[in-house]
Amino acid sequence: MKNYFIARARRLRTTPYTSRIEKQGVTAYTVYNHMLLPAAFGSLEDSYHHLKEYVQIWDVAGERQVEISGKDSAKLVQLMTCRDLSKSKDGRCYYCPIIDEEAGIINDPVVLRINENKWWISIADSDVILFAKGLAIGNKFDVKIIEPNVDIMAVQGPKSFKLMEKVFGDKITKLKFFGFDYFDFEGTKHLIAQSGWSKQGGYEIYVENTKSGLKLYDLLFKIGKEFNVKPGCPNLIERIESTLLSYGNDMDNGDNPYECGFDKFINIDSNIVFLGKEKLKKIKTEGIKKKLMGIKFDIEEINLTESMDLKDERSNIIGELRSACYSPHFRKVIGIAMMKKPFWEVSQIVKIEINGKTFDGKVCDLPFI
Amino acid sequence: MKNYFIARARRLRTTPYTSRIEKQGVTAYTVYNHMLLPAAFGSLEDSYHHLKEYVQIWDVAGERQVEISGKDSAKLVQLMTCRDLSKSKDGRCYYCPIIDEEAGIINDPVVLRINENKWWISIADSDVILFAKGLAIGNKFDVKIIEPNVDIMAVQGPKSFKLMEKVFGDKITKLKFFGFDYFDFEGTKHLIAQSGWSKQGGYEIYVENTKSGLKLYDLLFKIGKEFNVKPGCPNLIERIESTLLSYGNDMDNGDNPYECGFDKFINIDSNIVFLGKEKLKKIKTEGIKKKLMGIKFDIEEINLTESMDLKDERSNIIGELRSACYSPHFRKVIGIAMMKKPFWEVSQIVKIEINGKTFDGKVCDLPFI
Repeated sequence: MKNYFIARARRLRTTPYTSRIEKQGVTAYTVYNHMLLPAAFGSLEDSYHHLKEYVQIWDVAGERQVEISGKDSAKLVQLMTCRDLSKSKDGRCYYCPIIDEEAGIINDPVVLRINENKWWISIADSDVILFAKGLAIGNKFDVKIIEPNVDIMAVQGPKSFKLMEKVFGDKITKLKFFGFDYFDFEGTKHLIAQSGWSKQGGYEIYVENTKSGLKLYDLLFKIGKEFNVKPGCPNLIERIESTLLSYGNDMDNGDNPYECGFDKFINIDSNIVFLGKEKLKKIKTEGIKKKLMGIKFDIEEINLTESMDLKDERSNIIGELRSACYSPHFRKVIGIAMMKKPFWEVSQIVKIEINGKTFDGKVCDLPFI
Repeated sequence: MKNYFIARARRLRTTPYTSRIEKQGVTAYTVYNHMLLPAAFGSLEDSYHHLKEYVQIWDVAGERQVEISGKDSAKLVQLMTCRDLSKSKDGRCYYCPIIDEEAGIINDPVVLRINENKWWISIADSDVILFAKGLAIGNKFDVKIIEPNVDIMAVQGPKSFKLMEKVFGDKITKLKFFGFDYFDFEGTKHLIAQSGWSKQGGYEIYVENTKSGLKLYDLLFKIGKEFNVKPGCPNLIERIESTLLSYGNDMDNGDNPYECGFDKFINIDSNIVFLGKEKLKKIKTEGIKKKLMGIKFDIEEINLTESMDLKDERSNIIGELRSACYSPHFRKVIGIAMMKKPFWEVSQIVKIEINGKTFDGKVCDLPFI
């Protein structure tokens, strides 16, 4: 596959870490929330193996925050998601599909409840701030909505705990998964969550004080040598194996949360008020007609740049492959596909055409691992 | 400057033209409305000279449409823009800044009035559809909001008129600037506007019927040989010389329309209802504190990837350079900058640091040409 350059401009915003990662060998970018998100430091597979064994520092500033504060903030946040947040607690993160009135997914952020009147929506790639502003204006809600100056630095991998302990002490190892708290670094408080875009464990540091954050970035590399620290970024292979769904890749506004397997984040039976609730009830009654499933192919390579048709024996389209990579763990290509009913059953055979050749794949459950 | 690759994935959507432009030699992409937008076919300067003399076909499918239809559609479209659309006519395009309640710019689309109850908002790079949906839901407007299957193909350059006449006949040469109409191509109607992201003249074909559009694409190249037709894309040099402002580059949500020189598109004295009207009145009374201006530097090269500080003699920051390129027309670097009051006067000297060296520039009026 031919590679193409990315044309740089102010519109594809740099991050506070950009000059550093460029010295550290970033080779490819993607664009996420109008911002550069590093996508490779050389070989994806080398980076994958390293991430699973050691620790990496990631510039994930592209995960922007939508800050909603004020008297009606809880009401607005709840209005946007089908997940019941009525019993949510300060200092906790919540994975919350955001849907519209037709129950189409708009984003799948992690929502941080800072307190009852202040929330951060840590967004995937769509302008949730515009949806929130539109809803707030239309409903005359008493809220303030901004994109705060927050640039997340992630510390990911099994050695992240030891590395972070060296800086923040024992207290940080006690942080629960999806919990967050404030930690001091040389006199500056940083909001840190035990979370991240990998299943190898780690933290996300919500850097508000850029100067202190950059100092911390440099320090982590300096003192992380004993743990073989390297720069990295969300890794395509790791995230597919771990089945961390990606908005825009695995799902989009044409899909509803039931189709994406988000059942446990849908609370249609509670008293909460959210958009698309009636539509979700209808969908639940009628049943879904497509569903995200895993697929495994006995091939050693794939370059997916857009949806690929999955067909049956008679060349009928029965599904759409949306993400895929070669998995070193399974020693085959694995992918995430939206399968039509009734072809989503495990072991269903699918056919895919790559460079004029047809290969067989088999439907499997998600997550892969 | 080092070049970086773009990491491909379904989330950075391809267009119906992608496979064609890749065969035709596209070398760089940018991302626009979550879609690949070609940014270079080899040398920018060669492409600039060609565009000014001949004709180019552009894949600008990234200019997505937000279709707003239904009883309250005119009300919603007007609510989003400070430009008075009460006297707008079917078959006309309108450049309309979209602003929020604080008068911060959200987008600067071209709005097409298809009829009183159906509008297309041809957007710059932000998810206007989410703003429109939020406003419609909050206000309980009777509208339908979708992103229709429209992939614009632009025909730009002085020879575009002759080329299009060969396909659509005399009628198309009578289309006025920013007018649009439906034209038949082998039995399929295409909405075509006299418009485009260059000032070299031309058309934008709003392709809804993909199959017919691709046939037309191929035909234009075939019959365009006599006009030296080439593939192209919005050209950085041409657009800066012509001062076609770019949302995200030259302005963003932190700027208001007065600061961007959009005075003629602001109608605070009419009876129309739009967001940010009171704020705009206040801004007009108090006066703006920053303003977009041109800058010329006696240097031969610049690579702008993010905002660059402009300083005075005493190293105070007096402005921010947001777009810049070497202009073959002026034989110097030209750029668009947000200048602080009172440093926006023509002939104001600014200093810029590039690779450790300081250069002088001079403020000038916009547009450059």
